Amino acid sequence: MRPGAPMTRRIRNGWLVALLLVAVAAPAAAAPPADPLPSWRDGPARRAILRFVSAVTRPGSPDYVPPPERIATFDNDGTLMAEKPHYFQLYFVIERIRELAPQHPEWKQEPPFATVLSGDGDHLADLSREDLERLVLAASAGTTEDEYVAAIERFLAEAKNPELGLRFPQTAYQPMLELIRFLRARGFKVLVCSAAGPEMIRGFSEKTYGVAREGVIGSDMEMRFELDGERPVLVREPRFVPPTNDRGGKPINIDRAVGRSPILAFGNSDGDIEMLEFTAYSGRPHLALLLRHDDAEREFAYDEGAEQALELAPARGWVVVSMHESFRRVFATRPPRRHGAP
Amino acid sequence: MRPGAPMTRRIRNGWLVALLLVAVAAPAAAAPPADPLPSWRDGPARRAILRFVSAVTRPGSPDYVPPPERIATFDNDGTLMAEKPHYFQLYFVIERIRELAPQHPEWKQEPPFATVLSGDGDHLADLSREDLERLVLAASAGTTEDEYVAAIERFLAEAKNPELGLRFPQTAYQPMLELIRFLRARGFKVLVCSAAGPEMIRGFSEKTYGVAREGVIGSDMEMRFELDGERPVLVREPRFVPPTNDRGGKPINIDRAVGRSPILAFGNSDGDIEMLEFTAYSGRPHLALLLRHDDAEREFAYDEGAEQALELAPARGWVVVSMHESFRRVFATRPPRRHGAP
Repeated sequence: MRPGAPMTRRIRNGWLVALLLVAVAAPAAAAPPADPLPSWRDGPARRAILRFVSAVTRPGSPDYVPPPERIATFDNDGTLMAEKPHYFQLYFVIERIRELAPQHPEWKQEPPFATVLSGDGDHLADLSREDLERLVLAASAGTTEDEYVAAIERFLAEAKNPELGLRFPQTAYQPMLELIRFLRARGFKVLVCSAAGPEMIRGFSEKTYGVAREGVIGSDMEMRFELDGERPVLVREPRFVPPTNDRGGKPINIDRAVGRSPILAFGNSDGDIEMLEFTAYSGRPHLALLLRHDDAEREFAYDEGAEQALELAPARGWVVVSMHESFRRVFATRPPRRHGAP
Repeated sequence: MRPGAPMTRRIRNGWLVALLLVAVAAPAAAAPPADPLPSWRDGPARRAILRFVSAVTRPGSPDYVPPPERIATFDNDGTLMAEKPHYFQLYFVIERIRELAPQHPEWKQEPPFATVLSGDGDHLADLSREDLERLVLAASAGTTEDEYVAAIERFLAEAKNPELGLRFPQTAYQPMLELIRFLRARGFKVLVCSAAGPEMIRGFSEKTYGVAREGVIGSDMEMRFELDGERPVLVREPRFVPPTNDRGGKPINIDRAVGRSPILAFGNSDGDIEMLEFTAYSGRPHLALLLRHDDAEREFAYDEGAEQALELAPARGWVVVSMHESFRRVFATRPPRRHGAP
C-alpha cells in the first residue's frame, strides 16, 4: 500500500487481512480428523493400536511417554512385507550364487549350493537358517560394499515375488505403511529390525516405508577398510558381526543402534519373540503385536515358524493381528496372481 | 471480538492485526544474520568451514549435496572434549576397577590392573590401547546394561577432569558445540564416532552436543539377552564386537550405523585417519579437519598420537585447525585450574 492511500482504503485492506487470517485458520479447526488407518478394519487390533498411541502421546496422560523414548520396531519379512514363498533376500542370493557358480565348480556337489543351483525351487523350503547364512556369506564375501549395494539396487528394480507377481517392495502391506506413517506423525522413531542384511532393506526402506537408512537394523557382515590409491573401499568379509539379527540378537542390536528399547514392537514369527519381550525393558507402557498369516486368498496362510510366539502371546499380553480380519486391504497394488487381493 | 461490537472498533482491530503481522515479520527480514561461529577466530579454518557449508547447502550450487547425504562425523576425545591427562573413560574404568578389586586379589600383582590400583597416576600414561581395552572389559563384563548406564550417569554427574577442575561434559570445546549446532541448522546429520563405549558418550551427548543417543557410534561390547522372570535383561560379555571403533573400524561402523559415508569429518589423532579418508568415499565434495592441540595455556599442547595424521594432512588436503589460533574461547566455563582459559 502507498503511504498516500486514502484512510478508508487502508482500513478496508487491514480488515481484509484479518478476514483472510480467519479463513485460513478455520478449516483446520473445523474439519473432522482424517482416519489415520483407513486400511485397518475396526476390531481389537486397530482399537489396541489407537488406544495405546493416544495414551502415550496425550500430554497429561498418566501413560505419557516423551518423544525421545517413543521407539517402535518392526520386523521386516512377514511383518512389513510378504515372506512367502521365501525371504526376498534368498532370491537375491540365488541370483548371485548362479553368477558366481562358474568360478566354483565344487558347488554342484555341495549343499546348500547344489540345492540352489539345481533350479528346482521345491527344495528351497528345506534350507535352514544356517544354510541361508552360508549362502549369504558366499554370495558377497570379497565384494566391495558399493558393488554390493549397486547389485541390490538392480535386483530390487527388476526381480518379482514369483507367487504374487509384484516387485518385492510392492509386497509391503498397505496397513503397515499406514501404521508407520501414523506413528511417525505422533513423534515415534520407527526402526526396521530384520534378520536380513541391512543393505537389502536400505535399498527401498526410505521410498517404501519412509524409514531412512539409519533406521534399518539387520545382520551385518564384517568388513575391512582399504585404500585403493586414495580411494577408500569397504570389503565384505565372510563372517557375520555377532549377534546376527534374529531372536535374542534383535534386542541387543536395537540397544546398540539407539541406546533405547522399543515401547511398540511388531513381529510375526518366533524370530521376533525376544524383540516383543524387549518392549517390557524400559518399564514404560508398551504394546507388542504379532501378525498372523491366515489369509490364503489375499496373501498366504501359515503358522509354521510362529508356533512358539502364538503360544506365548496370550500370557504375555501380545496382540495377535489376524490379517484376514484386520486388513481391509493387503497390498497397495493388486497382485496379478491373486484373486481376492488387494 | 463480540459479534455486536461497533463496526468502527472491528475495523480498527482488523487494522491492528495487519500492523502486528508486519511488526512480527519485519525484524527477521531486516536483521543481519547472527554469526553462527562466534567462538571461531577469522582465519583459514573458519573460512574453509563456512565456504564448504555454503557450497554444499546452497540450492543451485554445483557442489550441492542433498540433505540425506549431509553426514558429519566427529571424533570425541580430543576433538569435541579434552582428552588429557587421559581419556575420560579411563577415570570411569579406574573407579570401577577399584570397586571390584576386593573380589580380585590377583589384580594387585597383574598389569594393567596393578598400575590402576597403585594409585600412582604417573604410570597411567604408559597404558596402551590394549591395556585400556582389557580394563574396560574387566570393569563391566557380567554387568547388566542398565546397571552400567546408571553407573555412567553417576560418574558424569560427579567426576572431574583432574587438570582442568571441570566435570567431563564441561570440557567440551565451545567452538565445536557451535559448529555442531551450525551444521545441524544446515540440514546435516551429526554423528559422534569414538573409540570409547557408546554408553559413555550417550550419558551426555544429547544435553551437551545436541546429538541424540542414536547419533553416537562407539566400541560395542558383546551382550547376551536374558529373561529375569518376565523382565528382559541385557548382560555385557567380556568381548568387543569387531571392529573396535578406532582407525579402520570407524568407517566400517559408520557405514554399518547409517549406510552412508560422511562428507565432513573432524578428528584429532592417528585413530581418526581412516575416518578422515572416508570423506572421499561417496565422491561428493568433502571436508576433513584435524584439530591440533597447541594451546598449553588454555588447554594442552601435544602432538603425540597425531604424528602420522599431521604428516598426511597436506597431501590429503585436510585442514589442520590450530586450537591456539582458531579458538577465540576454548570452554564455555572457565576452568578453575587454567589461567588463560576460557
